[in-house]
Amino acid sequence: MKKSSFQNRLSALKSMLPGIKADTLWITQPENRRYFSGFKAEDTSFTESSGSLVINKKKSLLVTDSRYTTEAQKEAFAFEVVTVKKPMAEELPTLLRKLGTKVLGFETAHLTWELHRQMQNALKRLSPPIRLTPVRALLENMRIIKDRDELRAMAAASQLMGDILEEIIPRLQAGFSEKSVAWEIEGLVREGGAEGLAFPSIVASGPNSSLPHAVPTERKIRPREPITLDVGLRMDGYCCDMTRTVFIEEPKPAFKKIYRTVRKAQLAGLDAVKPDIMSNIPDKAARDVIEDAGFGPFFGHALGHGVGLAAHESPRLAPRKPEVLKEGMVVTVEPGIYIPQKGGVRLEDMVVIGKKGIKILTQCNYLYDF
Amino acid sequence: MKKSSFQNRLSALKSMLPGIKADTLWITQPENRRYFSGFKAEDTSFTESSGSLVINKKKSLLVTDSRYTTEAQKEAFAFEVVTVKKPMAEELPTLLRKLGTKVLGFETAHLTWELHRQMQNALKRLSPPIRLTPVRALLENMRIIKDRDELRAMAAASQLMGDILEEIIPRLQAGFSEKSVAWEIEGLVREGGAEGLAFPSIVASGPNSSLPHAVPTERKIRPREPITLDVGLRMDGYCCDMTRTVFIEEPKPAFKKIYRTVRKAQLAGLDAVKPDIMSNIPDKAARDVIEDAGFGPFFGHALGHGVGLAAHESPRLAPRKPEVLKEGMVVTVEPGIYIPQKGGVRLEDMVVIGKKGIKILTQCNYLYDF
Repeated sequence: MKKSSFQNRLSALKSMLPGIKADTLWITQPENRRYFSGFKAEDTSFTESSGSLVINKKKSLLVTDSRYTTEAQKEAFAFEVVTVKKPMAEELPTLLRKLGTKVLGFETAHLTWELHRQMQNALKRLSPPIRLTPVRALLENMRIIKDRDELRAMAAASQLMGDILEEIIPRLQAGFSEKSVAWEIEGLVREGGAEGLAFPSIVASGPNSSLPHAVPTERKIRPREPITLDVGLRMDGYCCDMTRTVFIEEPKPAFKKIYRTVRKAQLAGLDAVKPDIMSNIPDKAARDVIEDAGFGPFFGHALGHGVGLAAHESPRLAPRKPEVLKEGMVVTVEPGIYIPQKGGVRLEDMVVIGKKGIKILTQCNYLYDF
Repeated sequence: MKKSSFQNRLSALKSMLPGIKADTLWITQPENRRYFSGFKAEDTSFTESSGSLVINKKKSLLVTDSRYTTEAQKEAFAFEVVTVKKPMAEELPTLLRKLGTKVLGFETAHLTWELHRQMQNALKRLSPPIRLTPVRALLENMRIIKDRDELRAMAAASQLMGDILEEIIPRLQAGFSEKSVAWEIEGLVREGGAEGLAFPSIVASGPNSSLPHAVPTERKIRPREPITLDVGLRMDGYCCDMTRTVFIEEPKPAFKKIYRTVRKAQLAGLDAVKPDIMSNIPDKAARDVIEDAGFGPFFGHALGHGVGLAAHESPRLAPRKPEVLKEGMVVTVEPGIYIPQKGGVRLEDMVVIGKKGIKILTQCNYLYDF
C-alpha cells in the first residue's frame, strides 16, 4: 500500500468525526486498525488485542504494549505509538483526558459488553466525564469501495490462488486424503509468497462435499465423486476467495445435472452483478435457476459476500437486507447445491464491480461443460 | 475426550444456574462452546459464529446454521441441534420463549455491545419479557482445572511439539530464513497428526528476537545470534506452548550472560509454582532474578499464563491481580530478556500443577549450560 493511501483514509475519517457526534474515535477491530494505520499485527485471540487506534482531529495514536512497539513504529508511520503496561480500561482514560476528549466513539460490532462497561465506569469517574457513543459500520462502510492499491493486491492474490488450483487439480488422484490435498495447497500458498491462507482451506470429497463448511478429513478421494476446493490466500493483507468442484473421471449423470445447474446459476448471478443495483438481485437471479431445476431446498446460504482485508465483509449478496452495489466493490458469486449424505457442488468466483459490469479476478480453467 | 467428561461438565454447569440467577445460559464463546458440547467448528471471524449453546435445567440446545448442522449432530452428542436461518437476535427470542426462559445469562467477555443491544431490544418486546444477566468468567473458571482426559491431550501435544523441536534445532543452518524454519515446523506439526498450530509460530533471529511477538520474516539466520522458537500445536482441541532460544555456534559473552539469567529466572519461577499459592509469587521469583542481574527493564511481560482449549487462558502468572494456583491447572513459565535492536532470549515450558509441585509437560533437550 502507498503511504498516501493511508493518509487519505485517515483524513477522510477525521472529516467524518463531526457527523458521528464524537470528537475522538477508538478503533479496536483488527481489519479497521490495519486499514487506517498499516499496522499488520493480528490479534492472537478475541480478548487479546495487539493494539487499538485513538484518533481525533489533531492526533493519531496507536496504543499497544511492549510486545508490539517496534513493529508498530515501523508500520504505522502516520501514527504516534504509545506503549502501555496495564489493560486498556485502565490506561485509556488518562490518555483521553490528555487529548481533551469529550465524546469517544467506539465500534459496536467489536467491543465486548464487558470492556464497554469497564470503560464506561472509568470514563464517567473523570472530571469532566467522557461520554461513550456507539459507532456502527462507519469504518466497514469506508472499506467497502476498494482503491487501486487494494484491487492490485486482490488481483495478485487471486492470480496466485488460480495458478495454484491449476497446478493442484490435474495432479489429484484417487487415494489422496482431503487433509493431504489441503496441506499441499497451503505449501504452494506459502512458497508463492502469500502472507498465508485467507481462511482454512475446504477440501471436501464425496458425501463430505454436502457440508458447505466441511473441514478436511482423512477421507480418501475417489473417482466420479465431487471434490470441492474452497480456498483463499492473503497478500499484503488482502484476501481472495474461490471455489471449484472437480471430479476424477466423469461423474454420474445426477451430479452432472447438479453441476450444470450450479454453473448456470453462477453465470446468471455474475451477469446480474452491476453497479447501482440492489444486492439481492444477483442472489435472486442465481436462486431462481436452482429453484427452477428443483434444487431450491438444497441451496441454503447466501449467493456471496464482500472480500477485502477480511475474507467475509460487506456487502452481502443475499435475499434479505439488500444494499446498493457500487463500482469498486469486490464480491464473491458462489451458488451451491448440497444433497445431504450424497454430495454437493459449489462454484465461486470473486469479482470487482466496474462502471458497467464485472471483472472476474479469480481465474481457473477447471470448469466443466457437462 | 470421553462422553462422560462432557456429561459431567454439563451437569456441573446446570447445577450452577441458580447461583448466577439465570434459568438459561447462552454460550457464544468458542472454547466454552467446545468444552461443554464437543462441537469442534471454529468461528471464521469474531462476527461469524458457527453456533451457540442454549442450556437450561432440562434442555441443552446447540443453535447453528445449515453449514454446520451435520457436524454438530455428530459431535455434540448430548445436545439437541437446532438449525436456524436468520441471525441470532431474530431467532433466539422465539426459541427462548418456547423454553420458558425468564432470565438469560450471557458471556460478558465475548458478546459484543451490538449483539447484546439487539438481543435486549428483542427480548424486552416479548410478553412476558426476558431479562439478560451478565455472566463473568464462570465458564472460564470451570475450564481452569484440567481433568485426566484434558491432561492426556496436553501431554500428547507437548510430546509431539518437543520431538519436532528436537528434530528441527540440530538441522538449523546459517542462511535459512525465519519463514522457512516456521514453515518446516508447521509441516512436521501436520505430519505428526496434530489438528494444527495452537498459534502462529514465532521464529525470530538476531535483532528480531528482541521483539517478544515477532512474526517470521525473510531474514536469514546467522551464527552466534539468538534464534527464538516459540511454538505450539493443538491435539484433540488442546494446546501446548513452548519456547527455546538457540544458537548456531557459541554466542557472544553478552548473550551468554542473558541466557544464563533467563534460565536461572525460569528455574526460580518453576520452583515457585505450587498448589495453593498466589500466582504473583512465581512471577516475582523469576522477575527478582532478572532484576538482580540488572535486566529488569528488559522483561516487559508476565511470567506465564494458563493453557487449555485456548493457547492463553486463566490463570495469569503476573505481578498484578493474583489468583490462587490449584492442583490440575496448566501454566507456562516463560521469562525473557529483550534488548532493543540487539536481540532477546526467552525460555518457556508448560507445566501441570500437581499435589506438591509441578510436572513439566514440554520436553526439549536444547537448553544450554553456558
